[in-house]
Amino acid sequence: MSILVLQGSARDEGNTEQLSKLVLEGIPHKEILLRDRRILPINDQRHTEGGFDPVDDDYDDVIREVLQHDTLLFATPVYWYTISGVMKNFIDRWSQSLRDSRFDFKTAMAQKKAYVLVVGGDNPRIKAMPLIQQLKYTFDFVSMPLEGYIIGKASKPGEILNDKRAIQEAEWLNAELKNLRFSVIG
Amino acid sequence: MSILVLQGSARDEGNTEQLSKLVLEGIPHKEILLRDRRILPINDQRHTEGGFDPVDDDYDDVIREVLQHDTLLFATPVYWYTISGVMKNFIDRWSQSLRDSRFDFKTAMAQKKAYVLVVGGDNPRIKAMPLIQQLKYTFDFVSMPLEGYIIGKASKPGEILNDKRAIQEAEWLNAELKNLRFSVIG
Amino acid sequence: MSILVLQGSARDEGNTEQLSKLVLEGIPHKEILLRDRRILPINDQRHTEGGFDPVDDDYDDVIREVLQHDTLLFATPVYWYTISGVMKNFIDRWSQSLRDSRFDFKTAMAQKKAYVLVVGGDNPRIKAMPLIQQLKYTFDFVSMPLEGYIIGKASKPGEILNDKRAIQEAEWLNAELKNLRFSVIG
Amino acid sequence: MSILVLQGSARDEGNTEQLSKLVLEGIPHKEILLRDRRILPINDQRHTEGGFDPVDDDYDDVIREVLQHDTLLFATPVYWYTISGVMKNFIDRWSQSLRDSRFDFKTAMAQKKAYVLVVGGDNPRIKAMPLIQQLKYTFDFVSMPLEGYIIGKASKPGEILNDKRAIQEAEWLNAELKNLRFSVIG
Repeated sequence: MSILVLQGSARDEGNTEQLSKLVLEGIPHKEILLRDRRILPINDQRHTEGGFDPVDDDYDDVIREVLQHDTLLFATPVYWYTISGVMKNFIDRWSQSLRDSRFDFKTAMAQKKAYVLVVGGDNPRIKAMPLIQQLKYTFDFVSMPLEGYIIGKASKPGEILNDKRAIQEAEWLNAELKNLRFSVIG
Repeated sequence: MSILVLQGSARDEGNTEQLSKLVLEGIPHKEILLRDRRILPINDQRHTEGGFDPVDDDYDDVIREVLQHDTLLFATPVYWYTISGVMKNFIDRWSQSLRDSRFDFKTAMAQKKAYVLVVGGDNPRIKAMPLIQQLKYTFDFVSMPLEGYIIGKASKPGEILNDKRAIQEAEWLNAELKNLRFSVIG
Repeated sequence: MSILVLQGSARDEGNTEQLSKLVLEGIPHKEILLRDRRILPINDQRHTEGGFDPVDDDYDDVIREVLQHDTLLFATPVYWYTISGVMKNFIDRWSQSLRDSRFDFKTAMAQKKAYVLVVGGDNPRIKAMPLIQQLKYTFDFVSMPLEGYIIGKASKPGEILNDKRAIQEAEWLNAELKNLRFSVIG
Repeated sequence: MSILVLQGSARDEGNTEQLSKLVLEGIPHKEILLRDRRILPINDQRHTEGGFDPVDDDYDDVIREVLQHDTLLFATPVYWYTISGVMKNFIDRWSQSLRDSRFDFKTAMAQKKAYVLVVGGDNPRIKAMPLIQQLKYTFDFVSMPLEGYIIGKASKPGEILNDKRAIQEAEWLNAELKNLRFSVIG
């Protein structure tokens, strides 16, 4: 098993990143900071003759990384009650990958497992439900199981450490990921 | 009353734009194609000393337009079960406007009315519910009432015209907007 | 095609019934007022040796009617943001029918189509979304397609007639049901 | 602080009851098994002249208990993706209490805190979201804060003990309730 964190946070060392670190403590993984990659919004050419034009940005590199891992952790702050813009731009481009003849994106995704970690400031255990539902539909579309999610509550830097429940859930996910790792290797 | 359409679609003459046109038939309005404006993802400096740095893109122009209208129509295709990336980037930047001393963004937004129009291909009347809920929470945050929404079903170009129900709802919204206009002017 | 209305309202001539009448104008159908039938809450014996005991109430009669129709209209007021108690008691008992050896409930349901009509007083087009989602999951469980739903807004008796949008949607559903009928018979 | 468990499960010693017990270990509380009380579906007389007729069942007794506690734990299995029929019948009757001149139901409820515990068999961490949202709207209506919820996964008797995450969440809620108690008394 190899884990890729798709980090959608829009600042360094924010609460989402802190919680991600707790989840991944002691677990080898690779992390991509989406905000440090240049990923343009999709130019929707699904119905254009000739299909999608190649785009000169970092999306291809990121998707190549995605294809090399079997477990994806989507980590994002709750911005305006859904995933961050950088993560949305990234996911929107999947429409392009679905039509990319260089690989079979859908089949590849269907063989992975997804986890979701979100942190929000405004009652996220209720108000981030639509976010989770939206990602669930997204993963369903490519037949990638959503194995679990955790929702933390924090706004100011460092506040996540006061959310005992989120800390506990991070421990649960840490144990689950270690277990998964062990069961594959062992 | 003056209407601004914030158009989040990512292709010309797509179904979302077609349905928007039906909604606005015979009604003076201004439309902003978000995909034609350069709006960068937010650099989250809410908790940075000194606050947000100015960003050299078109966001300021768009928000100035927003402030000059009292009725906003958010039109977006359903991309991966939520609003398009270009619309998400735009809304994410509201966090910056909330801290912008040049105007009182929250008070200004609270005096507007919002409508939402979305078009999706995969059972949108069920699977776009999280999208609507997310926008509802967003508008609640700035105390802007969501006066109504319509959901259309279409994927291929032009398909929206086969969705009788969406066409009928567009007529309803067209009548509602005309009525609103009349009641203010008349 | 034959239509059965499962009426979950808890008073005579309420808004839900009024809207149902508009939907069914000119269309032969049978209606069951669930409140007039004695349907006990489920006694959950799914895991009891010997399974469910027979229950002496009207549930069996109702389910026999259900099995004789191919189109079901679930009509219910929004009570406390979900279906009424009488409708919930009825649906809970499906767990019993799923284990009833006299018929193949799941296969029979999978051959029907479902429509939903709800009327609520407190912003139902947003706050009845969970109700619709819950019924969608319910119908998915028995592989019965949810062909459409309409949401009306009303509290006081007769108020539904002021909800132009609901009236219009009732007309849409009326046309859809007539069409369905025609396409089967014609 | 005094805790009342409103138990909506429909069988003895089911998973919902087991998880409730873990939550309440070592904490004094009172529990009402709703299935053992006779609570009729509401006869909706909100708009009837003279209002609601008295109903000869156990609802009054239950509501009197409710009014004597400041913390309510709503425990229910997920039946067909929402609360059980016996719990729905109970909550539907709140419409009657809202109009009951013997006490000020809304003000009384606004002074309580609510917790929710649900156990479902079919992907409840996703598919019980509408249930939680529905209860959130319900509690909002009477201004009673929803302080937290836990969702467990189990179908067969005893299965809940295999859901490590639910067990851990039960421990979290147990600690939270003990803390609450201490902070009031101490």
